[in-house]
Parts: sequence; C-alpha cells; structure tokens
Amino acid sequence: MAGDLQKRRIPEATVARLPVYLRILLELAESKTATISSERLAELAGVNAAKVRKDLSYLGSYGTRGVGYDVEYLLFQMSRELGLNHDWPVVIAGIGNLGSALANYGGFTERGFPVAALVDADTTKVGRSLGDLEIRHVDELPQLVDELGIAIGVIATPAHVAQGVADKMAEAGIHSVLNFAPAVITVPDGVSLRKVDLAVELQILSFYQQHRHEQTV
Amino acid sequence: MAGDLQKRRIPEATVARLPVYLRILLELAESKTATISSERLAELAGVNAAKVRKDLSYLGSYGTRGVGYDVEYLLFQMSRELGLNHDWPVVIAGIGNLGSALANYGGFTERGFPVAALVDADTTKVGRSLGDLEIRHVDELPQLVDELGIAIGVIATPAHVAQGVADKMAEAGIHSVLNFAPAVITVPDGVSLRKVDLAVELQILSFYQQHRHEQTV
Repeated sequence: MAGDLQKRRIPEATVARLPVYLRILLELAESKTATISSERLAELAGVNAAKVRKDLSYLGSYGTRGVGYDVEYLLFQMSRELGLNHDWPVVIAGIGNLGSALANYGGFTERGFPVAALVDADTTKVGRSLGDLEIRHVDELPQLVDELGIAIGVIATPAHVAQGVADKMAEAGIHSVLNFAPAVITVPDGVSLRKVDLAVELQILSFYQQHRHEQTV
Repeated sequence: MAGDLQKRRIPEATVARLPVYLRILLELAESKTATISSERLAELAGVNAAKVRKDLSYLGSYGTRGVGYDVEYLLFQMSRELGLNHDWPVVIAGIGNLGSALANYGGFTERGFPVAALVDADTTKVGRSLGDLEIRHVDELPQLVDELGIAIGVIATPAHVAQGVADKMAEAGIHSVLNFAPAVITVPDGVSLRKVDLAVELQILSFYQQHRHEQTV
C-alpha cells in the first residue's frame, strides 16, 4: 500500500485521537464537505491546530496551504490506519448482566467488530443461546479463535476472574483485549489492553457531586 | 464531618485513582486484611508508593510507620470522599440499543447509582416500559430531576443529538453527565463531564491489531 514505505511509529496519544478525527471526518463526508482546514478540524476535535497537523503528518497527510485537507482522502487514510477496512471478530467472555448487554448492543457489529462468540465458565450457562449465538465454555477459546478468526477479546466477567480470562485469551492467540471488569489486569508483551470501567467513571462523577458545594466556595 | 475542616482541593488525577484504591480496599476488607502498607497498595493499584502516600494524604490519611494504613478506616474515608455513603439517582437519555443495555445492566444500582428515570425524544418510545420504568419524554427532564432527585445524567443518544441533551440536562439542574455518545460535547461551568466511548476503545485496539506485525519488526 502507498504510504506504508515511510511508516513511522505513531505515538500512543496520537493513536487515541485518530478515532476522534475519524468520527468528525465521517460527519463532514456525510454533509458533503470536500476539504477541511487543520484549524477547523482542531476546533471540532477539541485540540489545537498544531497537534492536528502533527497527528496527521504521521499518516503522511500534510494538507494543501490555503485549502486544507481533502476529507475523502483523509478518511480513507484514517480508516486504513485504524484497520477499519475489514472486520475484527470479537469474543465476549462473561455472559452476566454486562456481557449480555454488550452482546445485545448493536454498536460492535455496526462498527466492524462483529460479536462472533460468547464464552462463560459457568456450565449452567454454556449451551444457552443469546441472539444468534450459543454460549460456549471459556476453555473452548483456542478452537473458537482458530475457527472464527477472533481478533478482540472483551472481558465482562466479575473482577476476581478477569486476570484468568485474560491469560486464557492471550494463550488462545488473542492480541487485543478490552477489559470491562473492575480489576487491574496484565497481559503479555505483544497483547494490547484497553479498559472501560463504568464504576470508576460513576465514582469520579459522584466525587464531584459530593464536593460540588465546597469547590465553588 | 471530621476531616472536612482541613479539606484541600484534590487534583483530578488523584480523584481518578480513588476508585481504584476503593476497589482494592474492598477486596482487602473482604479477605479480612486489617492493615496495608503504601508499597503493597501501590503494587495492587499499579502506581508507585510515593504517589499512593501523596494521594491518601489528601484524605487526611497518613498511615502508621511500620504498620501501614488501617483498611477499614481508609475504606470509610474513601467512600465518604467519593460520596458513596448515599445513592445518586441516574437518568438515562436515549433508549436505543445502548441505552436499553445500560438500563438493564444491574451494575449502576448495585454501586449506588440507581437508574431512576429513562427519557427519549422519540414519541413512539415514550410511554413504553423497560423493567420497572416507563420511558418519559426528554422535555420532562426538569420535573423528573425535581421529583426524583436525579444527580447524574447518562447520555446514550446518537452523536448528533448528544449536545442538545447535555444542554437540557444542565438546564434541568443535573450537575454530572456521563456521555456514551461518540461526540465531543461541552457542559457549562459547574457541571462535571466524563465520557465512555466504546467505538474509540475498539478502534484503538483495531489500530494495534492492524499494526501488530510492523511494530515487532
């Protein structure tokens, strides 16, 4: 692919902003906007223009002075960079309240992350169906990963078993883990880990709610 | 309350770590551990011991040399500081896939954030029931906030209406907003905002998945 030759290692903070740019570019493309300046893109993304230019330069995108960036081409580069030009099948581990909610949430599939498998350690759950999928035993992970080309493991288990599940995922050959369990877990080198902790977000809001009056004094 | 007299403004980064300490302390209390050193707490939280000591000093907790911190007392201080000694009722706005999933997810109530109301702008949804709650119109937010003492607004709408809903929440007197919509939104001064963007997390994982081979070269 063109552009791959001069590829440089992209900093983590830049990677984290790419999805934000992507969302904005999708909206611009939808509204038939052909070009965008780094200043306007910066404003929409809530960062400064110099950072936008630097971030986009990692993709080999430099824009045209006085014109800006071509929206469609930038969108193509961004999607390719983010690996969104094909699907990444997902397995959800832990089919309790949250796991079921995530399995039923259409947003994964819609965004190119189809939920391909559900696993649980609870043998009373194994064999039950949820939507189109049958819940399988967590020990079947290696076969499921092989058969279905699972790329991403979502952990929705209770905290105390999350590390064990992460270990099983890594052993099964999964290289990307999204952890919803309220536990600090570690993964081997070569495995990427992201976490979403709803309890933490709520407790941070609760802190500010609790201290609201103090802080305005 | 004792301790409130010497209250200092707690840095944001410390606030973000308090829920992590809380989770660890809850586990320690469950396993009947009476005291913990800052070193061990640091190890469990994945930060360094000096940071732990500094963070806890904001709560007026200094530990005892050679003994460490009293787990139960630290837990009490932490819960009080995080406002977890009482419930914070939640309204969920946008009862689509994600909103319904969040409404059905027991984790909010379990953690002291009972889902007290559901609102949507779609009049075909208004009046329908989900669990014990009837979906109300988003324009009823001011009454709902008054009647039910709503403290936290959860936005689970499509991106393009998220800002409008945030504005309505702020006008209705909600001071804490948790945004799940994939949109950058702003809130007035005095309103706290946190965001959870599942698409962003997935796309970041997808980036590393896509670039996995390059990076190891």
